[in-house]
Amino acid sequence: MTRVTVWAEYRQERRDPPVAAVYPDGIHAAIAEGLRDAGFEVRTATLDEPDHGLTDDVLGETDVLTWWGHVAHAEVGDEVVERVHRRVLDGMGLIVLHSGHHSKIFKRLMGTTCDLNWREAGERERLWVVDPAHPIAEGLGQGFTLDAEEMYGEHFDVPAPDRLVLISWFSGGEVFRSGCCYERGRGRIFYFRPGHETHPSYRHPGVRRVIANAATWAAGSSGDRPERRGRPEPSEAGSTRR
Amino acid sequence: MTRVTVWAEYRQERRDPPVAAVYPDGIHAAIAEGLRDAGFEVRTATLDEPDHGLTDDVLGETDVLTWWGHVAHAEVGDEVVERVHRRVLDGMGLIVLHSGHHSKIFKRLMGTTCDLNWREAGERERLWVVDPAHPIAEGLGQGFTLDAEEMYGEHFDVPAPDRLVLISWFSGGEVFRSGCCYERGRGRIFYFRPGHETHPSYRHPGVRRVIANAATWAAGSSGDRPERRGRPEPSEAGSTRR
Amino acid sequence: MTRVTVWAEYRQERRDPPVAAVYPDGIHAAIAEGLRDAGFEVRTATLDEPDHGLTDDVLGETDVLTWWGHVAHAEVGDEVVERVHRRVLDGMGLIVLHSGHHSKIFKRLMGTTCDLNWREAGERERLWVVDPAHPIAEGLGQGFTLDAEEMYGEHFDVPAPDRLVLISWFSGGEVFRSGCCYERGRGRIFYFRPGHETHPSYRHPGVRRVIANAATWAAGSSGDRPERRGRPEPSEAGSTRR
Amino acid sequence: MTRVTVWAEYRQERRDPPVAAVYPDGIHAAIAEGLRDAGFEVRTATLDEPDHGLTDDVLGETDVLTWWGHVAHAEVGDEVVERVHRRVLDGMGLIVLHSGHHSKIFKRLMGTTCDLNWREAGERERLWVVDPAHPIAEGLGQGFTLDAEEMYGEHFDVPAPDRLVLISWFSGGEVFRSGCCYERGRGRIFYFRPGHETHPSYRHPGVRRVIANAATWAAGSSGDRPERRGRPEPSEAGSTRR
Repeated sequence: MTRVTVWAEYRQERRDPPVAAVYPDGIHAAIAEGLRDAGFEVRTATLDEPDHGLTDDVLGETDVLTWWGHVAHAEVGDEVVERVHRRVLDGMGLIVLHSGHHSKIFKRLMGTTCDLNWREAGERERLWVVDPAHPIAEGLGQGFTLDAEEMYGEHFDVPAPDRLVLISWFSGGEVFRSGCCYERGRGRIFYFRPGHETHPSYRHPGVRRVIANAATWAAGSSGDRPERRGRPEPSEAGSTRR
Repeated sequence: MTRVTVWAEYRQERRDPPVAAVYPDGIHAAIAEGLRDAGFEVRTATLDEPDHGLTDDVLGETDVLTWWGHVAHAEVGDEVVERVHRRVLDGMGLIVLHSGHHSKIFKRLMGTTCDLNWREAGERERLWVVDPAHPIAEGLGQGFTLDAEEMYGEHFDVPAPDRLVLISWFSGGEVFRSGCCYERGRGRIFYFRPGHETHPSYRHPGVRRVIANAATWAAGSSGDRPERRGRPEPSEAGSTRR
Repeated sequence: MTRVTVWAEYRQERRDPPVAAVYPDGIHAAIAEGLRDAGFEVRTATLDEPDHGLTDDVLGETDVLTWWGHVAHAEVGDEVVERVHRRVLDGMGLIVLHSGHHSKIFKRLMGTTCDLNWREAGERERLWVVDPAHPIAEGLGQGFTLDAEEMYGEHFDVPAPDRLVLISWFSGGEVFRSGCCYERGRGRIFYFRPGHETHPSYRHPGVRRVIANAATWAAGSSGDRPERRGRPEPSEAGSTRR
Repeated sequence: MTRVTVWAEYRQERRDPPVAAVYPDGIHAAIAEGLRDAGFEVRTATLDEPDHGLTDDVLGETDVLTWWGHVAHAEVGDEVVERVHRRVLDGMGLIVLHSGHHSKIFKRLMGTTCDLNWREAGERERLWVVDPAHPIAEGLGQGFTLDAEEMYGEHFDVPAPDRLVLISWFSGGEVFRSGCCYERGRGRIFYFRPGHETHPSYRHPGVRRVIANAATWAAGSSGDRPERRGRPEPSEAGSTRR
């Protein structure tokens, strides 16, 4: 059974009443619930736990990590970021959610600023499938609609995705590459745009389906671990001058 | 006229006689000579200069930076790496050469380990053009041969290149993706595999042609600088609930 | 000077008053005017000319061909399609416009159905730049708006573009990959979504800028013509068993 | 259970003694044996059967089709090519083997000439894994070696692969992109370079592993069948002028 660790800051939900009203048990609880219902083995971890809940042991038992952060990216310890980075390159899947676009781990993996445009105005968001053959699109049909969400608009400063699965339309007039697949080392990374902390998007069936599909995709085979080292003996005998 | 800054460590050439014998004035001098002959405006910078020769002023007047490092990657200051990183994302071209695959700036931009296999055995290297329509391939025909080079073999742990232009064949039996194009932010990046410090590859006309072509490509239009910020006013008037 | 041939069906403009009202001299005339103003050497060709105006001589003197067709795709002769196909693979640029998505030449080059969703309802279209560093995006800033256009919606059944430059937002709720770059053989291909025959989009400065930028991009170096044939002599002397 | 149809010309094996000596029951029999041993449900079809053995019924019951052809590409009926093409775009996987690079179906899907360089000289071929995280690379380690094969050399005139998994090294000095993944419509396509009809490559465990891995990959989810049609009603109510 695929093991998912759901990570979130869990700060705004404890101090900001409008957020607590939407996610009284934390955003991570809502994400975890959706994944458990989809048949995954799920644990959660949050910023204020020791090591942010992300020890080597936890990561070693994690097939896919989901990441939601917003107001406290800077508080995530660099050594934890290094640890997660190594695990992703060694094959752990990573699903970066919404404002996680500015997390240290996502910027570290992308190599770019990951900046974008935004507006908090409760706009309608339509997510359209542009790669219907991709496993993350399975069961979504043409896409789905969220009645109210924060707007994220282009230009989104990330490397061109290896596969682009979803594009968002916003009632305010903007578009956004909302579902972006990357492969780095032996790991698979999916960026997924929703959801803002004041909207119940992580309870929406379309959003839950995407996250579950992405967890299945990101947990997929990571192949053999390649050796990369000095190789004094040539593959082709008698080929070299020495 | 395109302005290129050629950067190199310039350490082994001053202390290691076999290297000094090949590049008495430094590897950077040989690279700079090739670029000047091709019509570029060239300056050089090396590790032991203040700020490694890469001040904001220098970078501000640089369209394309070439990078050769090997034994002293760790001595490159993090603030200089940050400075170069920002300039690349803002549109400066970057050509990473040979052992520069392990430089801080390349790993920062790629987000991966950039590890590979290697062997110092003076092997024949054949570089084959696999994307003849790419501007970096112009004038190369099918490719060219270096009589003796260090071997670099797959797996090369980088993101899949946005465009793969050259693949190397080695007499010892290995292959390598030798000419890899990336775009990050508004900047263009080219990784080019030759040349080891004990071989005169930076005087080879094929190598010089590739570096000159890459400088022209990497200096190309960086388009408009996009704004990425909060946008309280929707593009579509009257569209939002507020 | 880059030589562009602007091809169009020129049928609806001669028989359908609402179309004639918008493009009295033909859609090709409006496209050609924009390209001439941008400094290109332009000629036009239309369906009802002998060979559809696309003889080997014409194609041989064409650096970039633009293609607009709609109601008469089936009347384009297969031998002309073959001729254009060969020229594209040999390095001629091709810009496919709007309903040209269903042209024989585009489907031939893409290998897919090139189907999409559509609606003629005079909707507002916002074209957003998602790759600001691409030469086709130069001078567009964040993008531009067309007040009334036909809607094209995803899923657009084409191969994933080698570079995606523009995404369209429509007031009716859909999105579309509006500016798609491909490289096939030694040729560069750009698909650009606007404009429907009843809207004056080919006089819009944003549309004209995209087409001019695309012509410059598509006319770019096509590199060396590779030999692809039997090669009885190995590159590596003495390597084979014979 | 995944259902694979193995297609081959089956001409040279019946008339050319050196080929019959290697594949007395036909190349398709050797490919089919490897796939059966790997747990697939396999049937075969050959050129001289009615409809080349590829009726709508057969294709309807086929998850993945493998294709080997060489001397009789021109004899494959256009209507069968159309039928296979439609099935691939609708989600059937396709594995194109060796000289199948010049088959009508592969050229139709690629849109290019699919030309390459070649030499029949029984050279050593080393296949290196360049994307170890891809499911087709699973279990291959760094790659494997074929003692004698026909050489295929770059430039290979295909679209840049969506994923490049294998690169071949030949003792005669050439390289080749040997394992290329494409997605077209809802179908997945894999081109795999070995094996020539005079070499027993389809009995080699490495080759068999690649073909089995590719069949698993190509049979993967094809997602939902998108509707692509006129849509008179906008998604966004009250959005349009009409």
